[in-house]
Amino acid sequence: MLLTLDGEGALYMQVYRSLKQQILAGRLREGERLPASRLLADSLGVSRNVVLQGYDQLKSEGFIVGRVGAGTRVADHLATADVRTGLAAARRRGETVSAVRLTEQANIALAYWQARAQPGTLPTRALDYDFRYGDVEVDPLSARIWRRLSGHLFTHSVHQYGHPQGEPVLREIIAEYAGAGRGCDCDPGQVCIVNGSQQALDILARMFLSPDSQVIVEEPGYPGARTAFQATGATLVPVPVDLAGIKVGQFPDPGSANGLIYVTPSHQFPTGSILSLPRRLALLEWAEQHNRFILEDDYDGEFRYAGRPIPALQGLDPAGRTLYVGTFSKVLFPALRIGYVILPGNLVEPFVGLRWLCDRHTATHQQRVLAAFIREGHYERHLRRMRKRYQGRRRALIDALHQAFGAEIELHGTNAGLHLLVWFREDALAAGESTLIAAARAAGVGVYPVSPLYQRPPGRLGLLFGYGGIPEARIAPGIARLRRVFAALR
Amino acid sequence: MLLTLDGEGALYMQVYRSLKQQILAGRLREGERLPASRLLADSLGVSRNVVLQGYDQLKSEGFIVGRVGAGTRVADHLATADVRTGLAAARRRGETVSAVRLTEQANIALAYWQARAQPGTLPTRALDYDFRYGDVEVDPLSARIWRRLSGHLFTHSVHQYGHPQGEPVLREIIAEYAGAGRGCDCDPGQVCIVNGSQQALDILARMFLSPDSQVIVEEPGYPGARTAFQATGATLVPVPVDLAGIKVGQFPDPGSANGLIYVTPSHQFPTGSILSLPRRLALLEWAEQHNRFILEDDYDGEFRYAGRPIPALQGLDPAGRTLYVGTFSKVLFPALRIGYVILPGNLVEPFVGLRWLCDRHTATHQQRVLAAFIREGHYERHLRRMRKRYQGRRRALIDALHQAFGAEIELHGTNAGLHLLVWFREDALAAGESTLIAAARAAGVGVYPVSPLYQRPPGRLGLLFGYGGIPEARIAPGIARLRRVFAALR
Repeated sequence: MLLTLDGEGALYMQVYRSLKQQILAGRLREGERLPASRLLADSLGVSRNVVLQGYDQLKSEGFIVGRVGAGTRVADHLATADVRTGLAAARRRGETVSAVRLTEQANIALAYWQARAQPGTLPTRALDYDFRYGDVEVDPLSARIWRRLSGHLFTHSVHQYGHPQGEPVLREIIAEYAGAGRGCDCDPGQVCIVNGSQQALDILARMFLSPDSQVIVEEPGYPGARTAFQATGATLVPVPVDLAGIKVGQFPDPGSANGLIYVTPSHQFPTGSILSLPRRLALLEWAEQHNRFILEDDYDGEFRYAGRPIPALQGLDPAGRTLYVGTFSKVLFPALRIGYVILPGNLVEPFVGLRWLCDRHTATHQQRVLAAFIREGHYERHLRRMRKRYQGRRRALIDALHQAFGAEIELHGTNAGLHLLVWFREDALAAGESTLIAAARAAGVGVYPVSPLYQRPPGRLGLLFGYGGIPEARIAPGIARLRRVFAALR
Repeated sequence: MLLTLDGEGALYMQVYRSLKQQILAGRLREGERLPASRLLADSLGVSRNVVLQGYDQLKSEGFIVGRVGAGTRVADHLATADVRTGLAAARRRGETVSAVRLTEQANIALAYWQARAQPGTLPTRALDYDFRYGDVEVDPLSARIWRRLSGHLFTHSVHQYGHPQGEPVLREIIAEYAGAGRGCDCDPGQVCIVNGSQQALDILARMFLSPDSQVIVEEPGYPGARTAFQATGATLVPVPVDLAGIKVGQFPDPGSANGLIYVTPSHQFPTGSILSLPRRLALLEWAEQHNRFILEDDYDGEFRYAGRPIPALQGLDPAGRTLYVGTFSKVLFPALRIGYVILPGNLVEPFVGLRWLCDRHTATHQQRVLAAFIREGHYERHLRRMRKRYQGRRRALIDALHQAFGAEIELHGTNAGLHLLVWFREDALAAGESTLIAAARAAGVGVYPVSPLYQRPPGRLGLLFGYGGIPEARIAPGIARLRRVFAALR
């Protein structure tokens, strides 16, 4: 009999679980004799006592009968419906297999997912005022137009396999749009359609990174990108961000390592800094000198409320070292799952190859509808409407925060995007970050700490306030209530 | 000046390209002096002659002027529109970056994509009769129903972020369907929705495989799965397939390596063998003994024309070692991009974590429409209609092949699926496989060799005939014409 211990928890429980699996899976049959405890202990390399304790546990649950020495046997009544149901349930839960070995990247992705699924980062309907970042408004007018186009464009050809690079009509429109709207320099042949920007990050990570790579990332920064890079085994090199974006002057010498530089220049996540023009140029220069590609994640470059727009890095880059990632999910509908990447021409085919391997292509019908939505001008009008709406919320949020907290806070990232970052005076942290957040939550206000987005905690209280998902009228009362929570904790 | 050679082609051309990049990127400016050829040769570790040849090439294209010795300079007229256009074009093509290093997995995926994109594996409208496998028919009635449901279910909630495991309503229906229709044993909590089966293969590969893993695969077998496994660095262990499916008795001792077993039991790809019940049981036993998971790809288990249906391995498996992958793309519309995987319960969360990292989730609206399509009985009716239609084509194809080639051929895989495999008598290969296929193609008949699906060529001529994309009435004339092509080559 081949027993494997799953290595989790007390040894005797491992022996118990392993034997129970054998019984449930029918490999140890009713009435069959169990191995002598001494033999089993030897073969497993554990003490006899451990085996005896395991047997005791099985006995107490009725799986085995008999006395040690006189021979221990599998109980006789195991073929009952109860046991069979128990077995089926155990199999469905996966408990019949011990010692499942997952890859390192699976464990990294799991930790990322579980961190995200913690209370406080998933939507909670019970909150009266939720300032979760990442939420966006679904515009009913745009949804109606989308639906109409969706019906019109439902033709026979949308049901056949498509090209992994994406529908030509959509790539053309994106090249045009990214040129006019974001200052990118590209032709449709450089555009690849993906299922939202996360897929672009994942594919680019797989395309460029291996365990010997280094990735320069912003500190604090976007966990979705960091995790995609870490999953390849690459090493992250966090570089601090200030009001002018990532501190390019602090990039370490990469030595002979290869890798990427990941930046969110138009609205740094989460600080909201806009990468200054001198730093943009220095970044491009550095990349050129050290033969690196820059992954430019323009995740919410569309929403800008003040200041002159700075064109995308991609458009400033004379050397073709920028891999530009854009998305429509944040701007239109989160569930849309369409983004794009603009690559130097000779990198398109490798990208397409990996995309083909990942999941073939993005649903054709959705791509056609999006192309029509942009071509007919609905996208521009949508952007204008939403900018105005978000602008109002942003104003309300800034005013409410100033009124409630005055000189106790410092605001960042107010010029663009759909969230802002609020740093509190140092003594605000005295009560403890999680205490503050839990108290706010108990009072029906969802606020979210910036600290999980740092690799090293910032040492003061910073909260992110998203306004993509909260109506303007609820902002001031929400902040007022938050103020009362804070006051009560002092 | 930092020059890097790209390592491709003649050395002097590498020097030429590298210098041209410096000039186009503005790092060598107009009128600027080039390094002395001897110095440059030393720093690059090439002979002086190589540098001189490179300079000559640049001179002949007008990028540099002057005489060796008297000093070579960048030409003065480079700020012209022509050059700027040339630079932009070079940047767009990615020619401004030399020596791009891609990962091994990117190269593997690229080779897979390029092999697929060869003439003969992509659709060619110019063919009169195309027996490409993998094509399926889009049913106009089902498409109309889908469109109607699509309009009805276009509600506000379909636009917000969804859960990476998939919509609960769809998971419930799939669990029910897979239980009744495919003999799977599962509850909705074990079902994860993916963008077609390829995504499931890719995620499972990333979840279980690393460079020290071994994957047992069918020989011949499905390249989409093989490539996903190889991309992780894992080693493939091909095991031959006969009329009863993969030869489980020939599985090698896995030693201490971990890994997966990949099988297509309901209709082996490409031979069409159905894995016999004794082998199914032996396979499950082997997996249990060696602590492996089995990846069961049920890519076209839906279409079966003769014989009693054998339930999915997943339903026979007492030990919870089967990872079942199903798809709707092949059955409904290829562009739909919805598949699913049924996992032991404790593997669901790791799968969901990786899915979240890959691309978040499958578009919500499509999932809801599919759920309604199945719940309202349209899917069952669609299957019945299509089975009847494909049954007719299969009959026509078998008859035509027998009539045209008689005893010269042997048919395999006729009981299920959407293609069959035809082995020709040994002397058929005398003319050369590619000659035969090219001649058929020239005559307007698309036929496809089985040999690329082997890791070691089979040594005789085998052709795959898909009937998913060709109307019944065109089958007999297509085969008759193929016969004439063959006869002419004898």
